[in-house]
Amino acid sequence: MKNLTLLTDLYQLTMAYGYWKKGRSEDQAVFNLFYRKAPFGGAYAIFAGLEDALNYLENFRFTDVELQYLATLKGNDDQALFEEGFLKYLAELELSVKIMAPQEGTVVFPHEPMLRVEGPILQCQLLETALLNMINFQTLIATKAARICQAAEGDAVLEFGLRRAQGTDGALSASRAAFIGGCTATSNVLAGQLYDIPVKGTHAHSWVMCFDEEQEAFDTYAEAMPNNTVLLVDTYNTFEGVKKAIQTGLKLRGEGHKLIGIRLDSGDLAELSIVARRLLDEADFPEAAIVASNDLDEYTISELKKAGAQINLWGVGTKLATAYDQPALGGVYKLSAIQKDGEWQYKVKLSEDKIKVSNPGVLQIRRFIENGKFVTDVLYNEEDADPEKIKAYPLAGRQVYEAQGEAVDLLQTVFENGNVQIARKTCQEIQKYAAEQVKMIPDDLRELKLIKNYLVGLERRLNELKNDLIEKARG
Amino acid sequence: MKNLTLLTDLYQLTMAYGYWKKGRSEDQAVFNLFYRKAPFGGAYAIFAGLEDALNYLENFRFTDVELQYLATLKGNDDQALFEEGFLKYLAELELSVKIMAPQEGTVVFPHEPMLRVEGPILQCQLLETALLNMINFQTLIATKAARICQAAEGDAVLEFGLRRAQGTDGALSASRAAFIGGCTATSNVLAGQLYDIPVKGTHAHSWVMCFDEEQEAFDTYAEAMPNNTVLLVDTYNTFEGVKKAIQTGLKLRGEGHKLIGIRLDSGDLAELSIVARRLLDEADFPEAAIVASNDLDEYTISELKKAGAQINLWGVGTKLATAYDQPALGGVYKLSAIQKDGEWQYKVKLSEDKIKVSNPGVLQIRRFIENGKFVTDVLYNEEDADPEKIKAYPLAGRQVYEAQGEAVDLLQTVFENGNVQIARKTCQEIQKYAAEQVKMIPDDLRELKLIKNYLVGLERRLNELKNDLIEKARG
Repeated sequence: MKNLTLLTDLYQLTMAYGYWKKGRSEDQAVFNLFYRKAPFGGAYAIFAGLEDALNYLENFRFTDVELQYLATLKGNDDQALFEEGFLKYLAELELSVKIMAPQEGTVVFPHEPMLRVEGPILQCQLLETALLNMINFQTLIATKAARICQAAEGDAVLEFGLRRAQGTDGALSASRAAFIGGCTATSNVLAGQLYDIPVKGTHAHSWVMCFDEEQEAFDTYAEAMPNNTVLLVDTYNTFEGVKKAIQTGLKLRGEGHKLIGIRLDSGDLAELSIVARRLLDEADFPEAAIVASNDLDEYTISELKKAGAQINLWGVGTKLATAYDQPALGGVYKLSAIQKDGEWQYKVKLSEDKIKVSNPGVLQIRRFIENGKFVTDVLYNEEDADPEKIKAYPLAGRQVYEAQGEAVDLLQTVFENGNVQIARKTCQEIQKYAAEQVKMIPDDLRELKLIKNYLVGLERRLNELKNDLIEKARG
Repeated sequence: MKNLTLLTDLYQLTMAYGYWKKGRSEDQAVFNLFYRKAPFGGAYAIFAGLEDALNYLENFRFTDVELQYLATLKGNDDQALFEEGFLKYLAELELSVKIMAPQEGTVVFPHEPMLRVEGPILQCQLLETALLNMINFQTLIATKAARICQAAEGDAVLEFGLRRAQGTDGALSASRAAFIGGCTATSNVLAGQLYDIPVKGTHAHSWVMCFDEEQEAFDTYAEAMPNNTVLLVDTYNTFEGVKKAIQTGLKLRGEGHKLIGIRLDSGDLAELSIVARRLLDEADFPEAAIVASNDLDEYTISELKKAGAQINLWGVGTKLATAYDQPALGGVYKLSAIQKDGEWQYKVKLSEDKIKVSNPGVLQIRRFIENGKFVTDVLYNEEDADPEKIKAYPLAGRQVYEAQGEAVDLLQTVFENGNVQIARKTCQEIQKYAAEQVKMIPDDLRELKLIKNYLVGLERRLNELKNDLIEKARG
């Protein structure tokens, strides 16, 4: 479906209606989309989903289909929820918001805007939910994939999640985001087609079960696809399976082809892979790869590595595609400024929980880099800061950090005047960029379990502004 | 996207190619799609996703778009993976499988086929992954929704999950499945339009923050939408918020309208709702509802009920739409029979784990019902059973159960000869049917945490067949 304009919470439309009725629909506002706590107990996330967000924005319009549906909605008195004039306003609405974002694949830390949406408040609200949906999920999965790839220590990781992913698009966008996060291929053929990413796969247990003998199953498969022979060896007895795969490999070799490898899908993968490796090596198949699958994630892969597993490729399904141990990124979309009579009024959303108090301002992220590693990030208010003298005032009230090194501002304009403002990137390009980004994370911040937080501070004047606003609101 | 033919794992296509090369593509096979363990530590699941599966099957065909992509795939020798003759075969392929399923919304127990797919093995394999994707996810969410509705003890439950759901379709199909499982409405406008289910929503914190005073925000909202006034009262101070909502309610009343209710989205929902109820009652708003949201699921709702919370409507988001505590149903698709020379060869997939050994046969489910409650289910092989004398031989080797009561066979033909064979149901109809089904679950099997398993037995001859096959395979 190309037009996802109605992919929103109803309250965005009722609020839009309220602003329109009050004559405030064009009030200029700034909203930031960010997360508060890095997923999976780690320190960072990889920003993903921008491409879908841009497609959504490009196709955003209320056509007759959407308007006819909205006209059917009723309130509790059984009268129409929206009056006709509002629907006419929507029919003529063209997006005039400006949206800023980091490059897709950028490493982002808690509280940093992944999208900054600026423009008429009515439009900002209408876009909120779909943007959250797209950015939250793909950022979550790209991050999960990066963690899994890190645990795999350079081995290839294949994404196999389609069968248990959350819906069609849950699967497709997971395949895309997993690739961005570092996976080398997906099993999902449609994802391969749509996103131009490599697809991989050979056969299932059912193939073996359809033949009277496992050897016949292997030989038949190798005859049919001599250039794609990875044999699943654990349907009956894994070691016998490996020996039969070797027999098939010898036949392949005799015909000028190659046994690419074997796959293990059950049992003690460390032990089985060590024995399988020995059997393959003894039979002079040192290049035949061992692929493992079966409920893997970054933790099991780490354990298997520690146990000396001889595995070359990791097939990761459910736990990657659904981000099983944390299936949602809690990204939020908060108002940080609104104009009144041409002046910005800055806003914070209070909370008992200090980490939940949002940042005010028209925010930009300045990142400092030294010796190829991220050092610290500083949030500053573009409307009121001296960008030459940016120091980091830590959110958590620690010492002031004098930032040094090369400085990069992360947010660039990606959408303005109804059009996308950046060159579209291929998934390959985004993957490459994300890999470079991950390398720039300080080593102690790449641990699977958080050891320390990355320093995201506030610029001095922004810090004062925030403290003033909190005081006023509480006072 | 209508044509999802490529929404499959690559290995389904490589196996299909293998069968085609070997001249076995038309071998008749039977596969069953089932789950082994009920989700969320409960005893049952609600079968959902059939409608999407039928749409997928109706639109299944390899057009030039799909074939051109497949022609680009290469093996490790950089030669084409598939030869042209195979792509031509796919171009001409018309589905001739027969698919049986329970009615959508039926309560299903572990090991029971939710889909039985029968026909040429090549086709059975090509359909596997997409069917698993659709049935796994929607069954998971319908089940989660039923549990949450049960915890809400008859109060309305609203699904608010879009912003954190897993992708566009993860959100849409979650909204649909949540409605089937018992939710009364969704916040997702597009889901409302696509599935003709009610949509609900009023305003967010950002609405309140855009006004100088909370009272002005409430009054303005009520003026704009006097027929949809639920006011979010916790932006600053909840009790002050309730008092202001009452002021707005009085104005509404003066104009012949009604304050529908208030919403609480943070803090101690039990305590806050009790005080809010008192304030509303004292101000003569006994009919104003209290809506609660904020990270709810069946467990928190149960706790709040126990704590005496005065909540009338429950808004449930992330934990419902992503099935947070178990984000995937482990549904599988296993070969149970294949024809050789016109005779069925029955198949079991062995496993060290007894629960993982699959059932052989051309399976049907007979359910026995007494006094409006499910008593026991019996799996039998349609090709070899005496349906008049069906007794349950328990999977777990307990005593033989002599089934009594009304007997219903759950699987009916839903797709055959390339066409859907059943009347399409609306979501409303499916929801109603599912609610009747849930009432028929024995009370002790409806507990949130499993107390006992429902008895799903095997018919005598099927039990013997299975034991024979296991013995042969192991021996």
